[in-house]
Amino acid sequence: MKLSRYKQSSPVSYTLGATLSYELLKTHPKQITRVFLRPAPKYGQDLQKIIHEIEKHHIEIIETTKAFNVLGAKDDCLLIAEFTKFSTPLNPQKPHIVLINPSDAGNLGTIMRSAAAFGFEDIAIITPAVDNFAPKSIRASMGAAFHLNIASFPSIETYRKAFSSRPLLAFMLNNTAQQLSEAAQTAPDCYSLVFGNEASGLPAEFADFCTPVFIPQSESVDSLNLSVAASIALFTFRQI
Amino acid sequence: MKLSRYKQSSPVSYTLGATLSYELLKTHPKQITRVFLRPAPKYGQDLQKIIHEIEKHHIEIIETTKAFNVLGAKDDCLLIAEFTKFSTPLNPQKPHIVLINPSDAGNLGTIMRSAAAFGFEDIAIITPAVDNFAPKSIRASMGAAFHLNIASFPSIETYRKAFSSRPLLAFMLNNTAQQLSEAAQTAPDCYSLVFGNEASGLPAEFADFCTPVFIPQSESVDSLNLSVAASIALFTFRQI
Repeated sequence: MKLSRYKQSSPVSYTLGATLSYELLKTHPKQITRVFLRPAPKYGQDLQKIIHEIEKHHIEIIETTKAFNVLGAKDDCLLIAEFTKFSTPLNPQKPHIVLINPSDAGNLGTIMRSAAAFGFEDIAIITPAVDNFAPKSIRASMGAAFHLNIASFPSIETYRKAFSSRPLLAFMLNNTAQQLSEAAQTAPDCYSLVFGNEASGLPAEFADFCTPVFIPQSESVDSLNLSVAASIALFTFRQI
Repeated sequence: MKLSRYKQSSPVSYTLGATLSYELLKTHPKQITRVFLRPAPKYGQDLQKIIHEIEKHHIEIIETTKAFNVLGAKDDCLLIAEFTKFSTPLNPQKPHIVLINPSDAGNLGTIMRSAAAFGFEDIAIITPAVDNFAPKSIRASMGAAFHLNIASFPSIETYRKAFSSRPLLAFMLNNTAQQLSEAAQTAPDCYSLVFGNEASGLPAEFADFCTPVFIPQSESVDSLNLSVAASIALFTFRQI
Protein backbone atom coordinates (compact mmCIF):
# COMPACT_ATOMS: atom_id res chain seq x y z
CA MET A 1 0.00 0.00 0.00
CA LYS A 2 1.55 3.24 -1.15
CA LEU A 3 0.82 6.19 1.09
CA SER A 4 2.65 9.31 2.20
CA ARG A 5 1.94 12.31 4.38
CA TYR A 6 -0.47 14.82 2.91
CA LYS A 7 1.01 17.63 0.82
CA GLN A 8 -0.71 20.54 -0.96
CA SER A 9 0.79 19.33 -4.24
CA SER A 10 -0.75 15.87 -3.88
CA PRO A 11 -3.66 15.03 -6.22
CA VAL A 12 -5.47 13.30 -3.34
CA SER A 13 -6.50 14.35 0.16
CA TYR A 14 -8.11 12.68 3.17
CA THR A 15 -11.12 13.00 5.44
CA LEU A 16 -10.06 11.96 8.94
CA GLY A 17 -13.02 10.43 10.73
CA ALA A 18 -16.23 8.59 9.88
CA THR A 19 -18.56 11.61 10.00
CA LEU A 20 -16.46 13.72 7.63
CA SER A 21 -16.01 10.73 5.32
CA TYR A 22 -19.75 10.20 5.28
CA GLU A 23 -20.30 13.84 4.23
CA LEU A 24 -17.90 13.22 1.34
CA LEU A 25 -19.65 9.98 0.42
CA LYS A 26 -23.03 11.73 0.31
CA THR A 27 -21.83 14.62 -1.84
CA HIS A 28 -18.93 13.37 -3.99
CA PRO A 29 -18.89 9.53 -3.87
CA LYS A 30 -17.08 9.19 -7.19
CA GLN A 31 -14.10 11.16 -5.90
CA ILE A 32 -13.33 8.54 -3.21
CA THR A 33 -10.43 6.31 -4.25
CA ARG A 34 -10.19 4.05 -1.17
CA VAL A 35 -11.11 3.94 2.50
CA PHE A 36 -8.89 2.99 5.43
CA LEU A 37 -10.43 1.28 8.45
CA ARG A 38 -8.62 0.96 11.75
CA PRO A 39 -8.74 -2.72 12.87
CA ALA A 40 -10.87 -3.09 16.01
CA PRO A 41 -12.64 -6.02 17.69
CA LYS A 42 -16.01 -4.33 17.17
CA TYR A 43 -17.42 -1.23 15.48
CA GLY A 44 -20.31 0.90 16.74
CA GLN A 45 -23.64 0.93 14.91
CA ASP A 46 -23.13 4.32 13.25
CA LEU A 47 -19.76 3.25 11.87
CA GLN A 48 -21.18 -0.06 10.65
CA LYS A 49 -23.88 1.86 8.77
CA ILE A 50 -21.26 4.08 7.11
CA ILE A 51 -19.14 1.05 6.17
CA HIS A 52 -22.22 -0.51 4.61
CA GLU A 53 -22.86 2.65 2.56
CA ILE A 54 -19.23 2.64 1.38
CA GLU A 55 -19.54 -1.00 0.30
CA LYS A 56 -22.66 -0.18 -1.68
CA HIS A 57 -20.53 2.23 -3.75
CA HIS A 58 -17.98 -0.55 -4.43
CA ILE A 59 -15.18 1.48 -2.88
CA GLU A 60 -12.14 -0.50 -1.69
CA ILE A 61 -11.89 -0.72 2.12
CA ILE A 62 -8.43 -1.48 3.51
CA GLU A 63 -8.03 -2.56 7.13
CA THR A 64 -4.76 -1.03 8.33
CA THR A 65 -3.28 1.01 11.14
CA LYS A 66 -0.49 2.34 8.93
CA ALA A 67 -2.60 4.98 7.18
CA PHE A 68 -3.71 6.38 10.54
CA ASN A 69 -0.10 6.75 11.67
CA VAL A 70 1.15 8.22 8.38
CA LEU A 71 -1.68 10.77 8.27
CA GLY A 72 -1.37 11.69 11.96
CA ALA A 73 -4.94 10.66 12.87
CA LYS A 74 -5.98 10.70 16.51
CA ASP A 75 -6.58 7.42 18.35
CA ASP A 76 -10.35 7.81 18.19
CA CYS A 77 -10.28 8.18 14.40
CA LEU A 78 -11.42 4.82 12.99
CA LEU A 79 -12.03 5.62 9.32
CA ILE A 80 -10.27 7.71 6.69
CA ALA A 81 -11.41 8.27 3.11
CA GLU A 82 -8.87 9.08 0.42
CA PHE A 83 -10.29 11.18 -2.40
CA THR A 84 -9.19 12.85 -5.60
CA LYS A 85 -9.33 16.61 -5.24
CA PHE A 86 -11.85 18.34 -7.44
CA SER A 87 -12.77 21.83 -8.49
CA THR A 88 -16.27 23.24 -8.43
CA PRO A 89 -16.84 26.39 -10.50
CA LEU A 90 -18.51 29.31 -8.77
CA ASN A 91 -22.11 30.17 -9.59
CA PRO A 92 -22.13 33.57 -11.37
CA GLN A 93 -25.70 34.23 -10.20
CA LYS A 94 -25.06 33.86 -6.47
CA PRO A 95 -23.29 35.97 -3.83
CA HIS A 96 -19.65 35.02 -3.31
CA ILE A 97 -17.19 35.10 -0.45
CA VAL A 98 -13.74 36.20 -1.63
CA LEU A 99 -10.78 35.43 0.63
CA ILE A 100 -7.52 37.22 -0.15
CA ASN A 101 -4.53 35.06 0.82
CA PRO A 102 -6.06 33.33 3.86
CA SER A 103 -3.21 31.68 5.77
CA ASP A 104 -4.79 29.60 8.53
CA ALA A 105 -6.50 26.26 7.85
CA GLY A 106 -8.65 26.58 10.98
CA ASN A 107 -9.96 29.97 9.86
CA LEU A 108 -10.62 28.79 6.31
CA GLY A 109 -12.50 25.71 7.54
CA THR A 110 -14.51 27.78 10.02
CA ILE A 111 -15.50 30.24 7.27
CA MET A 112 -16.67 27.32 5.11
CA ARG A 113 -18.74 26.05 8.06
CA SER A 114 -20.33 29.48 8.58
CA ALA A 115 -20.90 29.87 4.83
CA ALA A 116 -22.93 26.66 4.76
CA ALA A 117 -24.76 27.69 7.94
CA PHE A 118 -25.84 31.01 6.41
CA GLY A 119 -26.67 29.79 2.93
CA PHE A 120 -23.61 30.99 1.00
CA GLU A 121 -22.52 28.42 -1.58
CA ASP A 122 -19.53 29.97 -3.34
CA ILE A 123 -16.03 30.84 -2.09
CA ALA A 124 -13.24 32.34 -4.18
CA ILE A 125 -9.73 31.99 -2.77
CA ILE A 126 -7.03 34.32 -4.04
CA THR A 127 -3.65 32.57 -3.91
CA PRO A 128 -1.13 32.24 -2.34
CA ALA A 129 -3.34 30.77 0.34
CA VAL A 130 -3.67 27.91 2.75
CA ASP A 131 -4.88 24.72 1.10
CA ASN A 132 -8.67 24.29 1.19
CA PHE A 133 -8.22 20.55 0.68
CA ALA A 134 -5.79 20.12 3.60
CA PRO A 135 -7.24 17.61 6.10
CA LYS A 136 -7.15 20.36 8.76
CA SER A 137 -9.23 22.77 6.62
CA ILE A 138 -11.77 20.04 5.90
CA ARG A 139 -11.95 19.07 9.56
CA ALA A 140 -12.52 22.67 10.70
CA SER A 141 -15.28 22.95 8.08
CA MET A 142 -17.05 19.96 9.71
CA GLY A 143 -17.75 18.69 6.20
CA ALA A 144 -19.14 21.98 4.87
CA ALA A 145 -16.18 21.94 2.44
CA PHE A 146 -18.08 19.33 0.41
CA HIS A 147 -21.27 21.36 0.16
CA LEU A 148 -19.65 24.46 -1.34
CA ASN A 149 -18.27 25.60 -4.66
CA ILE A 150 -14.67 26.64 -4.06
CA ALA A 151 -12.37 28.04 -6.75
CA SER A 152 -8.89 29.53 -6.63
CA PHE A 153 -7.70 32.59 -8.56
CA PRO A 154 -4.12 33.82 -8.92
CA SER A 155 -5.11 37.45 -8.30
CA ILE A 156 -8.09 39.65 -7.47
CA GLU A 157 -7.86 41.03 -11.03
CA THR A 158 -8.45 37.54 -12.47
CA TYR A 159 -11.44 37.11 -10.19
CA ARG A 160 -12.85 40.50 -11.15
CA LYS A 161 -12.50 39.71 -14.86
CA ALA A 162 -14.43 36.47 -14.38
CA PHE A 163 -17.21 38.14 -12.37
CA SER A 164 -17.23 41.73 -13.58
CA SER A 165 -20.87 42.74 -13.14
CA ARG A 166 -21.22 42.58 -9.36
CA PRO A 167 -20.32 45.01 -6.55
CA LEU A 168 -17.41 44.03 -4.30
CA LEU A 169 -17.87 44.82 -0.61
CA ALA A 170 -14.48 44.82 1.10
CA PHE A 171 -14.16 44.49 4.88
CA MET A 172 -11.50 46.93 6.01
CA LEU A 173 -10.72 49.39 8.76
CA ASN A 174 -11.29 52.45 6.64
CA ASN A 175 -12.52 55.77 7.97
CA THR A 176 -14.92 56.29 5.13
CA ALA A 177 -16.33 52.77 5.18
CA GLN A 178 -20.00 51.94 5.33
CA GLN A 179 -21.37 50.17 8.42
CA LEU A 180 -22.09 46.48 7.99
CA SER A 181 -25.84 46.73 8.65
CA GLU A 182 -26.25 49.55 6.12
CA ALA A 183 -24.22 47.65 3.52
CA ALA A 184 -26.35 44.55 4.07
CA GLN A 185 -29.59 46.54 3.73
CA THR A 186 -28.60 48.17 0.47
CA ALA A 187 -26.84 45.26 -1.27
CA PRO A 188 -28.30 43.89 -4.52
CA ASP A 189 -29.07 40.17 -4.95
CA CYS A 190 -25.64 39.41 -6.31
CA TYR A 191 -22.48 40.70 -4.61
CA SER A 192 -19.11 39.55 -3.32
CA LEU A 193 -17.89 39.94 0.27
CA VAL A 194 -14.11 40.39 0.30
CA PHE A 195 -11.91 39.62 3.33
CA GLY A 196 -8.16 40.15 3.72
CA ASN A 197 -5.37 38.06 5.19
CA GLU A 198 -5.27 37.37 8.97
CA ALA A 199 -2.16 39.44 9.62
CA SER A 200 -2.19 42.11 6.93
CA GLY A 201 -5.89 42.72 6.21
CA LEU A 202 -6.73 44.33 2.87
CA PRO A 203 -4.39 46.77 1.12
CA ALA A 204 -5.80 50.32 1.02
CA GLU A 205 -6.05 50.23 -2.80
CA PHE A 206 -8.95 47.78 -2.54
CA ALA A 207 -11.04 50.87 -1.76
CA ASP A 208 -10.48 51.93 -5.40
CA PHE A 209 -12.59 49.11 -6.82
CA CYS A 210 -14.57 47.92 -3.77
CA THR A 211 -17.07 49.51 -1.40
CA PRO A 212 -15.33 49.49 1.99
CA VAL A 213 -17.46 48.08 4.81
CA PHE A 214 -16.65 47.88 8.51
CA ILE A 215 -17.99 45.98 11.50
CA PRO A 216 -18.53 48.46 14.35
CA GLN A 217 -16.16 47.52 17.19
CA SER A 218 -14.43 49.01 20.20
CA GLU A 219 -11.16 50.84 19.79
CA SER A 220 -9.62 48.66 22.50
CA VAL A 221 -8.90 45.90 19.97
CA ASP A 222 -7.02 46.12 16.69
CA SER A 223 -9.39 43.89 14.78
CA LEU A 224 -11.51 40.75 14.92
CA ASN A 225 -10.37 37.23 14.17
CA LEU A 226 -10.80 36.61 10.41
CA SER A 227 -13.30 33.76 10.70
CA VAL A 228 -15.28 35.77 13.27
CA ALA A 229 -15.41 38.89 11.07
CA ALA A 230 -16.45 36.86 8.03
CA SER A 231 -19.09 34.93 9.98
CA ILE A 232 -20.63 38.10 11.45
CA ALA A 233 -20.80 39.55 7.93
CA LEU A 234 -22.39 36.41 6.45
CA PHE A 235 -24.90 36.26 9.31
CA THR A 236 -25.85 39.92 8.88
CA PHE A 237 -26.25 39.70 5.11
CA ARG A 238 -28.64 36.77 5.58
CA GLN A 239 -30.69 38.24 8.43
CA ILE A 240 -31.70 41.44 6.69
CA MET B 1 17.73 30.57 35.74
CA LYS B 2 14.92 28.21 36.75
CA LEU B 3 12.30 27.72 34.05
CA SER B 4 10.11 24.88 32.89
CA ARG B 5 7.42 24.34 30.27
CA TYR B 6 4.12 26.02 31.03
CA LYS B 7 1.55 24.00 32.97
CA GLN B 8 -1.99 24.95 34.05
CA SER B 9 -0.94 24.30 37.68
CA SER B 10 1.92 26.80 37.48
CA PRO B 11 1.48 30.09 39.39
CA VAL B 12 3.05 31.97 36.48
CA SER B 13 2.35 32.19 32.76
CA TYR B 14 3.96 33.85 29.74
CA THR B 15 3.16 36.31 26.99
CA LEU B 16 5.01 35.21 23.86
CA GLY B 17 5.88 38.27 21.82
CA ALA B 18 6.53 41.97 22.32
CA THR B 19 3.04 43.21 21.45
CA LEU B 20 1.27 40.88 23.88
CA SER B 21 3.84 41.65 26.57
CA TYR B 22 3.24 45.35 26.06
CA GLU B 23 -0.54 44.86 26.55
CA LEU B 24 0.28 43.13 29.85
CA LEU B 25 2.66 45.91 30.85
CA LYS B 26 0.02 48.56 30.18
CA THR B 27 -2.71 46.78 32.15
CA HIS B 28 -1.03 44.70 34.89
CA PRO B 29 2.61 45.85 35.24
CA LYS B 30 2.92 44.65 38.83
CA GLN B 31 2.14 41.06 37.82
CA ILE B 32 5.25 40.84 35.63
CA THR B 33 8.05 38.93 37.39
CA ARG B 34 10.73 39.03 34.69
CA VAL B 35 11.20 39.50 30.98
CA PHE B 36 13.22 37.36 28.58
CA LEU B 37 14.87 38.98 25.58
CA ARG B 38 16.27 36.98 22.67
CA PRO B 39 19.88 38.10 22.02
CA ALA B 40 20.13 39.84 18.64
CA PRO B 41 22.64 42.21 17.04
CA LYS B 42 20.00 44.93 16.78
CA TYR B 43 16.38 45.49 17.84
CA GLY B 44 13.74 47.40 15.88
CA GLN B 45 12.44 50.75 17.09
CA ASP B 46 9.12 49.41 18.41
CA LEU B 47 10.87 46.73 20.45
CA GLN B 48 13.38 49.27 21.81
CA LYS B 49 10.48 51.42 22.97
CA ILE B 50 8.86 48.46 24.75
CA ILE B 51 12.18 47.53 26.41
CA HIS B 52 12.50 51.11 27.60
CA GLU B 53 9.00 50.97 29.13
CA ILE B 54 9.86 47.69 30.89
CA GLU B 55 13.01 49.24 32.33
CA LYS B 56 11.00 52.18 33.67
CA HIS B 57 9.00 49.67 35.74
CA HIS B 58 12.27 48.22 37.17
CA ILE B 59 11.42 44.76 35.85
CA GLU B 60 14.39 42.37 35.45
CA ILE B 61 15.29 41.74 31.78
CA ILE B 62 17.24 38.55 31.08
CA GLU B 63 18.99 38.07 27.74
CA THR B 64 18.71 34.39 26.91
CA THR B 65 17.67 32.00 24.17
CA LYS B 66 16.87 29.22 26.64
CA ALA B 67 13.47 30.60 27.69
CA PHE B 68 12.41 30.81 24.02
CA ASN B 69 13.30 27.15 23.48
CA VAL B 70 11.73 25.91 26.73
CA LEU B 71 8.46 27.77 26.05
CA GLY B 72 8.32 26.78 22.38
CA ALA B 73 8.40 30.33 21.03
CA LYS B 74 8.67 30.86 17.28
CA ASP B 75 11.88 32.23 15.78
CA ASP B 76 10.38 35.69 15.26
CA CYS B 77 9.42 35.97 18.94
CA LEU B 78 12.02 38.27 20.53
CA LEU B 79 10.49 39.04 23.92
CA ILE B 80 8.59 37.04 26.54
CA ALA B 81 7.13 38.37 29.78
CA GLU B 82 6.67 36.04 32.74
CA PHE B 83 3.80 37.05 35.02
CA THR B 84 2.02 35.87 38.13
CA LYS B 85 -1.52 34.79 37.30
CA PHE B 86 -4.24 36.90 38.84
CA SER B 87 -7.98 36.79 39.29
CA THR B 88 -10.31 39.65 38.48
CA PRO B 89 -13.79 39.46 40.04
CA LEU B 90 -16.75 39.90 37.72
CA ASN B 91 -18.75 43.11 37.81
CA PRO B 92 -22.25 42.27 39.13
CA GLN B 93 -23.71 45.28 37.33
CA LYS B 94 -22.56 44.36 33.83
CA PRO B 95 -23.60 41.71 31.29
CA HIS B 96 -21.54 38.53 31.49
CA ILE B 97 -20.44 35.85 29.09
CA VAL B 98 -20.66 32.39 30.68
CA LEU B 99 -18.70 29.57 29.04
CA ILE B 100 -19.57 26.03 30.13
CA ASN B 101 -16.49 23.77 29.94
CA PRO B 102 -14.81 25.37 26.93
CA SER B 103 -12.12 22.97 25.73
CA ASP B 104 -10.15 24.78 23.02
CA ALA B 105 -7.61 27.52 23.79
CA GLY B 106 -8.04 29.06 20.34
CA ASN B 107 -11.80 29.38 20.80
CA LEU B 108 -11.46 30.79 24.32
CA GLY B 109 -8.91 33.37 23.18
CA THR B 110 -11.02 34.32 20.16
CA ILE B 111 -14.09 34.82 22.39
CA MET B 112 -12.02 37.11 24.66
CA ARG B 113 -10.95 39.09 21.59
CA SER B 114 -14.56 39.46 20.40
CA ALA B 115 -15.72 40.33 23.94
CA ALA B 116 -13.29 43.24 24.06
CA ALA B 117 -14.28 44.26 20.53
CA PHE B 118 -17.97 44.43 21.43
CA GLY B 119 -17.65 46.02 24.86
CA PHE B 120 -18.19 43.00 27.11
CA GLU B 121 -15.89 43.08 30.14
CA ASP B 122 -16.76 39.98 32.15
CA ILE B 123 -16.35 36.28 31.39
CA ALA B 124 -17.29 33.43 33.74
CA ILE B 125 -15.71 30.07 32.97
CA ILE B 126 -17.33 26.94 34.38
CA THR B 127 -14.66 24.29 35.00
CA PRO B 128 -13.37 21.83 33.95
CA ALA B 129 -12.20 24.06 31.15
CA VAL B 130 -9.20 24.96 29.06
CA ASP B 131 -6.79 27.29 30.86
CA ASN B 132 -7.48 30.99 30.18
CA PHE B 133 -3.90 31.80 31.21
CA ALA B 134 -2.32 29.29 28.81
CA PRO B 135 0.02 31.13 26.43
CA LYS B 136 -2.09 29.84 23.52
CA SER B 137 -5.32 31.33 24.97
CA ILE B 138 -3.60 34.67 25.58
CA ARG B 139 -2.14 34.68 22.08
CA ALA B 140 -5.51 33.95 20.44
CA SER B 141 -7.01 36.80 22.51
CA MET B 142 -4.45 39.21 20.98
CA GLY B 143 -4.02 40.68 24.46
CA ALA B 144 -7.76 41.13 25.15
CA ALA B 145 -7.26 38.65 28.03
CA PHE B 146 -5.68 41.50 30.00
CA HIS B 147 -8.57 43.91 29.46
CA LEU B 148 -11.27 41.60 30.83
CA ASN B 149 -12.48 40.34 34.19
CA ILE B 150 -12.32 36.55 34.07
CA ALA B 151 -13.40 34.28 36.91
CA SER B 152 -13.77 30.50 37.19
CA PHE B 153 -16.63 28.66 38.90
CA PRO B 154 -16.80 24.94 39.71
CA SER B 155 -20.41 24.67 38.48
CA ILE B 156 -23.24 26.68 36.92
CA GLU B 157 -25.04 26.47 40.29
CA THR B 158 -22.17 28.29 42.02
CA TYR B 159 -22.25 30.96 39.34
CA ARG B 160 -26.03 31.35 39.64
CA LYS B 161 -25.79 31.73 43.42
CA ALA B 162 -23.22 34.49 43.01
CA PHE B 163 -25.28 36.33 40.37
CA SER B 164 -28.86 35.38 41.11
CA SER B 165 -30.80 38.43 39.96
CA ARG B 166 -30.13 38.35 36.24
CA PRO B 167 -31.68 36.42 33.35
CA LEU B 168 -29.55 33.73 31.74
CA LEU B 169 -29.81 33.45 27.96
CA ALA B 170 -28.55 30.05 26.84
CA PHE B 171 -27.53 29.40 23.24
CA MET B 172 -28.86 26.00 22.29
CA LEU B 173 -30.49 24.15 19.41
CA ASN B 174 -33.90 23.98 21.04
CA ASN B 175 -37.16 23.94 19.11
CA THR B 176 -38.81 26.40 21.45
CA ALA B 177 -35.88 28.81 21.59
CA GLN B 178 -36.17 32.51 20.94
CA GLN B 179 -34.41 33.99 17.89
CA LEU B 180 -31.20 35.87 18.63
CA SER B 181 -32.43 39.24 17.34
CA GLU B 182 -35.61 39.04 19.40
CA ALA B 183 -33.66 38.05 22.53
CA ALA B 184 -31.27 40.96 22.00
CA GLN B 185 -34.14 43.43 21.55
CA THR B 186 -35.94 42.38 24.73
CA ALA B 187 -32.96 41.84 27.06
CA PRO B 188 -32.64 44.04 30.18
CA ASP B 189 -29.43 45.98 30.93
CA CYS B 190 -27.94 43.15 32.92
CA TYR B 191 -27.94 39.56 31.61
CA SER B 192 -25.66 36.60 31.03
CA LEU B 193 -25.08 34.90 27.68
CA VAL B 194 -24.39 31.18 28.23
CA PHE B 195 -22.53 28.99 25.72
CA GLY B 196 -21.86 25.24 25.92
CA ASN B 197 -18.85 23.10 25.17
CA GLU B 198 -17.55 22.75 21.59
CA ALA B 199 -18.49 19.09 21.19
CA SER B 200 -21.45 18.60 23.51
CA GLY B 201 -23.22 21.98 23.53
CA LEU B 202 -25.52 22.70 26.47
CA PRO B 203 -27.44 19.94 28.26
CA ALA B 204 -31.23 20.15 27.71
CA GLU B 205 -31.83 20.89 31.43
CA PHE B 206 -30.32 24.36 30.97
CA ALA B 207 -33.70 25.26 29.49
CA ASP B 208 -35.17 24.85 33.02
CA PHE B 209 -33.34 27.89 34.39
CA CYS B 210 -32.28 29.75 31.22
CA THR B 211 -34.11 31.34 28.31
CA PRO B 212 -33.06 29.29 25.27
CA VAL B 213 -31.87 31.38 22.32
CA PHE B 214 -30.85 30.25 18.85
CA ILE B 215 -28.94 31.74 15.95
CA PRO B 216 -30.96 31.14 12.75
CA GLN B 217 -28.92 28.86 10.48
CA SER B 218 -29.34 26.40 7.64
CA GLU B 219 -30.18 22.78 8.38
CA SER B 220 -27.23 21.70 6.23
CA VAL B 221 -24.84 22.18 9.16
CA ASP B 222 -25.05 20.74 12.66
CA SER B 223 -23.93 23.90 14.41
CA LEU B 224 -21.57 26.86 14.29
CA ASN B 225 -18.03 26.98 15.64
CA LEU B 226 -18.21 28.03 19.33
CA SER B 227 -16.21 31.23 18.97
CA VAL B 228 -18.25 32.17 15.89
CA ALA B 229 -21.59 31.58 17.65
CA ALA B 230 -20.49 33.56 20.70
CA SER B 231 -19.12 36.41 18.58
CA ILE B 232 -22.31 36.69 16.51
CA ALA B 233 -24.30 36.84 19.74
CA LEU B 234 -22.04 39.48 21.31
CA PHE B 235 -22.17 41.55 18.13
CA THR B 236 -25.97 41.36 17.93
CA PHE B 237 -26.50 42.27 21.60
CA ARG B 238 -24.35 45.36 21.10
CA GLN B 239 -25.85 46.50 17.80
CA ILE B 240 -29.44 46.67 18.95
